[in-house]
Amino acid sequence: MIIVMSPKADENKTDAVLERLKRAGFQIHLSQGVERTIIGAIRDRTRMGDLALAAMPGVESVVPILQPYKLASRAFKEEGTIVRVGDIAIGGEEIHVMAGPCAVESREQLLEAARLVKEAGATLLRGGAFKPRTSPYSFQGLEEEGLKLLAEAREKTGLKVVTEVMDASTLPMIAEYADILQIGTRNMQNFFLLREVAKVDKPVLLKRGVSATIEEWLMAAEYIMAGGNYNVILCERGIRTYESFTRNTLDLAAIPVVKHLSHLPIIVDPSHAIGKWRFVPPMAAAAVAAGADGLLIEVHPNPAEALCDGPQSLTPTNFQSLMQDLKSVAGVFGRKVGGN
Amino acid sequence: MIIVMSPKADENKTDAVLERLKRAGFQIHLSQGVERTIIGAIRDRTRMGDLALAAMPGVESVVPILQPYKLASRAFKEEGTIVRVGDIAIGGEEIHVMAGPCAVESREQLLEAARLVKEAGATLLRGGAFKPRTSPYSFQGLEEEGLKLLAEAREKTGLKVVTEVMDASTLPMIAEYADILQIGTRNMQNFFLLREVAKVDKPVLLKRGVSATIEEWLMAAEYIMAGGNYNVILCERGIRTYESFTRNTLDLAAIPVVKHLSHLPIIVDPSHAIGKWRFVPPMAAAAVAAGADGLLIEVHPNPAEALCDGPQSLTPTNFQSLMQDLKSVAGVFGRKVGGN
Amino acid sequence: MIIVMSPKADENKTDAVLERLKRAGFQIHLSQGVERTIIGAIRDRTRMGDLALAAMPGVESVVPILQPYKLASRAFKEEGTIVRVGDIAIGGEEIHVMAGPCAVESREQLLEAARLVKEAGATLLRGGAFKPRTSPYSFQGLEEEGLKLLAEAREKTGLKVVTEVMDASTLPMIAEYADILQIGTRNMQNFFLLREVAKVDKPVLLKRGVSATIEEWLMAAEYIMAGGNYNVILCERGIRTYESFTRNTLDLAAIPVVKHLSHLPIIVDPSHAIGKWRFVPPMAAAAVAAGADGLLIEVHPNPAEALCDGPQSLTPTNFQSLMQDLKSVAGVFGRKVGGN
Amino acid sequence: MIIVMSPKADENKTDAVLERLKRAGFQIHLSQGVERTIIGAIRDRTRMGDLALAAMPGVESVVPILQPYKLASRAFKEEGTIVRVGDIAIGGEEIHVMAGPCAVESREQLLEAARLVKEAGATLLRGGAFKPRTSPYSFQGLEEEGLKLLAEAREKTGLKVVTEVMDASTLPMIAEYADILQIGTRNMQNFFLLREVAKVDKPVLLKRGVSATIEEWLMAAEYIMAGGNYNVILCERGIRTYESFTRNTLDLAAIPVVKHLSHLPIIVDPSHAIGKWRFVPPMAAAAVAAGADGLLIEVHPNPAEALCDGPQSLTPTNFQSLMQDLKSVAGVFGRKVGGN
Repeated sequence: MIIVMSPKADENKTDAVLERLKRAGFQIHLSQGVERTIIGAIRDRTRMGDLALAAMPGVESVVPILQPYKLASRAFKEEGTIVRVGDIAIGGEEIHVMAGPCAVESREQLLEAARLVKEAGATLLRGGAFKPRTSPYSFQGLEEEGLKLLAEAREKTGLKVVTEVMDASTLPMIAEYADILQIGTRNMQNFFLLREVAKVDKPVLLKRGVSATIEEWLMAAEYIMAGGNYNVILCERGIRTYESFTRNTLDLAAIPVVKHLSHLPIIVDPSHAIGKWRFVPPMAAAAVAAGADGLLIEVHPNPAEALCDGPQSLTPTNFQSLMQDLKSVAGVFGRKVGGN
Repeated sequence: MIIVMSPKADENKTDAVLERLKRAGFQIHLSQGVERTIIGAIRDRTRMGDLALAAMPGVESVVPILQPYKLASRAFKEEGTIVRVGDIAIGGEEIHVMAGPCAVESREQLLEAARLVKEAGATLLRGGAFKPRTSPYSFQGLEEEGLKLLAEAREKTGLKVVTEVMDASTLPMIAEYADILQIGTRNMQNFFLLREVAKVDKPVLLKRGVSATIEEWLMAAEYIMAGGNYNVILCERGIRTYESFTRNTLDLAAIPVVKHLSHLPIIVDPSHAIGKWRFVPPMAAAAVAAGADGLLIEVHPNPAEALCDGPQSLTPTNFQSLMQDLKSVAGVFGRKVGGN
Repeated sequence: MIIVMSPKADENKTDAVLERLKRAGFQIHLSQGVERTIIGAIRDRTRMGDLALAAMPGVESVVPILQPYKLASRAFKEEGTIVRVGDIAIGGEEIHVMAGPCAVESREQLLEAARLVKEAGATLLRGGAFKPRTSPYSFQGLEEEGLKLLAEAREKTGLKVVTEVMDASTLPMIAEYADILQIGTRNMQNFFLLREVAKVDKPVLLKRGVSATIEEWLMAAEYIMAGGNYNVILCERGIRTYESFTRNTLDLAAIPVVKHLSHLPIIVDPSHAIGKWRFVPPMAAAAVAAGADGLLIEVHPNPAEALCDGPQSLTPTNFQSLMQDLKSVAGVFGRKVGGN
Repeated sequence: MIIVMSPKADENKTDAVLERLKRAGFQIHLSQGVERTIIGAIRDRTRMGDLALAAMPGVESVVPILQPYKLASRAFKEEGTIVRVGDIAIGGEEIHVMAGPCAVESREQLLEAARLVKEAGATLLRGGAFKPRTSPYSFQGLEEEGLKLLAEAREKTGLKVVTEVMDASTLPMIAEYADILQIGTRNMQNFFLLREVAKVDKPVLLKRGVSATIEEWLMAAEYIMAGGNYNVILCERGIRTYESFTRNTLDLAAIPVVKHLSHLPIIVDPSHAIGKWRFVPPMAAAAVAAGADGLLIEVHPNPAEALCDGPQSLTPTNFQSLMQDLKSVAGVFGRKVGGN
């Protein structure tokens, strides 16, 4: 950490800052320039905490040097983490596609969707049983009935199941049915929920908050890991910007950046990011070219009849054609699309 | 709702859209221009739901015309809502200041803070017992002990207490102690929690999500109101933008905009928005000039020793001086700062 | 400047960085921690330039410590600058209101507008003769004829004239007529134009770029000052964010922040920021409460007939009523609205 | 265009709006619902202009239906435009890479860079002779000497030359040397400059403004096309968002969106978007996978000695390796990297 003192700060103020740093166990490096004094303070990352340094008299600014996360950092663990879901390995050579409808709507719809995406090469089935909806008047999901249908689809197709957890109270029930627990974008900083999923022995798919920095996202992963669950998969799903033609702006640079800063696997959800099916396939291909370990894609047997997110869902035909492209792009980088 | 058909859409596609709209109970107005067909569709707002119109063949775009919220809208209730907290009325002529430390740290700190802010003219005491922290390694609050100290401070000073609820599991406990339940910015779209506070007979202070549009914010209020709790106070607390000199960008225009769209009272939290104490007083004065019904301000007996948010907390002296200015600005607009 | 070396950087890499810093005239402070090496480098601000340090092997990040602007900084000149326009002083005790139509449309419209705003207490007349328009098919301004009408209005009312310069080629003509040269938001980083207005002996009103940081804005002022023109007035006019209910988000915190970092006066344009006349008065009052040295407000004798920006223009009646409020708010802070 | 009347608007107000629309040549479609009146207004796109409808009494909102650009739209010209630069065709089957240093620094540097990028498969040479710099104290370019060196490099390698025009006054000189005129991100809405390049018989590379919407960007292209120059190449170069780990956020979705809305070719500049060389190659590959027609990439013989943008420049080795990947990714989509 670097503390920049104000040009007008006298010696007493600087001494007070130094005193506090020493008490907190920091190693000090003092640089007294002509114009101002700069203090370098170094401490073992594991004893992090809060010091109200920026509130002390004479302090102009405080510049952190080390990343605030530890367990999630590449420095902590050099080789990439591989998250195993049964016989599936996420984060390795294989790129896994998680596909299916936004919401589980009916037995017929889900089994049909599962069959179709399996056939096209997906290895995991997505589908919401509990749905976070901006409006209280929108369809909120089939709840436990939806979970049972997901389990039935898994049995029939062999696809693993990923579904969203919205609250600690329904977590035990969802954990019984799901293979991967999804934390949605609105809950990325629901710290109570993060601590709860940390205690469950299931991989967690952690979506990036719609206005979270990459650092805040890795801090959310740190919450789960600090609670004992190391099987975290990150999911980029678009960030909120001023551009409103697409629903959000897909930040594909997050892929190589996360791989540089962290050892955790990262996948991409182009469907929610873009919000219009027409632009989903090129962004899915781009995600693979940028190094994603997987994709989360909305596919519906009949998007125009979907109860949720129809406009961003691919038809089965479009999905099949996309999967062909993904396999070829993956091949360029020595990877393959999982399960094929 | 306006549905714009693509220039290439033939009659069959338009008919399919019309058919779906009619089945859903819409009144139809068809405009067939030379270049394209535009469909106006009007329906009673109370029967809102989802139609995947944008996913239908031939549809170019769907433009909503009516606001998606109802109970929260000014159209639903013309006169402004006044939320009563004991003998305090929020949303009327009086402007109420809620002040105190970020976190309850100790009995001494809290009672001292309460005494000071009461003396300067605040009518409510703020203070976190459960703290949402970006890092799992930061101070997380005194929990129930903190709630007890808040209750003691209320008894000693007569100040009402506002404190944050982070999860349904601790809601009953917090509701026993607090006068106003605060929903923090990270939980604005925690729909489970919104439904739970809707069932409690206490006013709710709903902070704007850090990247929420005003419409999404009013939809979150709608969740609480649709659940039966009409005593919602909105709180603008800064939005995330590219400018990083201040922590967030305080969107003061939200005050007149919310008052135009909704009947709910709105207050402002300049401390969290700005993140640097030096700039808090001018923004607090500006909020009152823009028509805010109240303020949420961090004050600490000794900011440089605070366990949380010291850099943005006012000293008692700065707070007293600010309160004098606020009273004068309120006077210009025929209002007064509550309790004085 | 702080250079953080990568944990893996060996001594040779650190030496190469030190060598380059020394050659460039920096004073060095080396901190060798257990985990990594941190280099503090201090140099006289006046000899700023580019060093591609972040591209050197072993360098993890480079953190600037000093502000990159000098002449515009409060450190360079402690007392606030007062810009004089004839007998008007901007940046002192008086708050000056610059009002008038978006565009000069006709003799009748302009003279009527000038008379009205003068009567209500404005001291400067705004009006565009050259208009930057997003669409090539929109009204582009009356050009020199518009300038002549502005000069006539000045003669008739005594109001000073502020108008926009869009290009170096029309600068000499505009400088002949205008009292203040306005650089619009789209030209804040038109460095050619900044260098040209720096050579003219007229005050410059520098609007903030719609996505400029405060630091970039002060760097643009530095361009003008480095070119010899010290009479720069900054104008906050809203920044682009995800919120689209208002045209832009008015960043009023920029007022106290600019006053902290710089000695230059700062005014606010709520009309362009908000884009809807209904919300302009509360934001104008808020700007004065936050410490603005002036306002730029669109007023049109008949907004519904305006050729440009009608929706954000105040009617004469609304403007008169606003001016009354502004005078009262200014009084709270010991200031007065200029010319009254 | 859709005009939504306020629920309280009486017949007279509606009639006034209808009257104005009719006078302006619109075809009217009136929908009178129970709650409010909605007016659909359709007119030939070619007679666009401004109507201050939103400022009229009783009007709640105005919703545009048609895109405001015409010549740039896909509706105007269905097949994709191919821009020819000598024997090079941009916008067709070939993907063209424009590579070279940020700034022309010296004869040796430029000729070496040109030789290297040519060898690796680039077909155009980039290099700035006039440099827009945020700081007036930074290196501003070699000006005409730089242009001469670019011409010499072209002669030696056969590479076409793309270089930036910053002002109308230097345009004739630059047009003499360059094959493609680049309009930088800060000048995307410098309408004077757009009108000037419209008169020159050279293709224009129009970079997206750092906070421009896709619609505003296409409107800027419309300025150039309306002025008579149809050879416009769009260049996505990152937009400003809250995420600051990368310099900007590369909006790759702009590629398929632009191809949907417009017939103009679009290329991508990952170097400026990301600002850190390490993350440039994956984003370049992603851009090709998303359908880009070309790339603009900074390559420097020795980035650590660059006078400008060293941290984001690729070394020759990294560039060669990237070009191999690009060729393979292009192959997946039936395209090839130009000149090979």
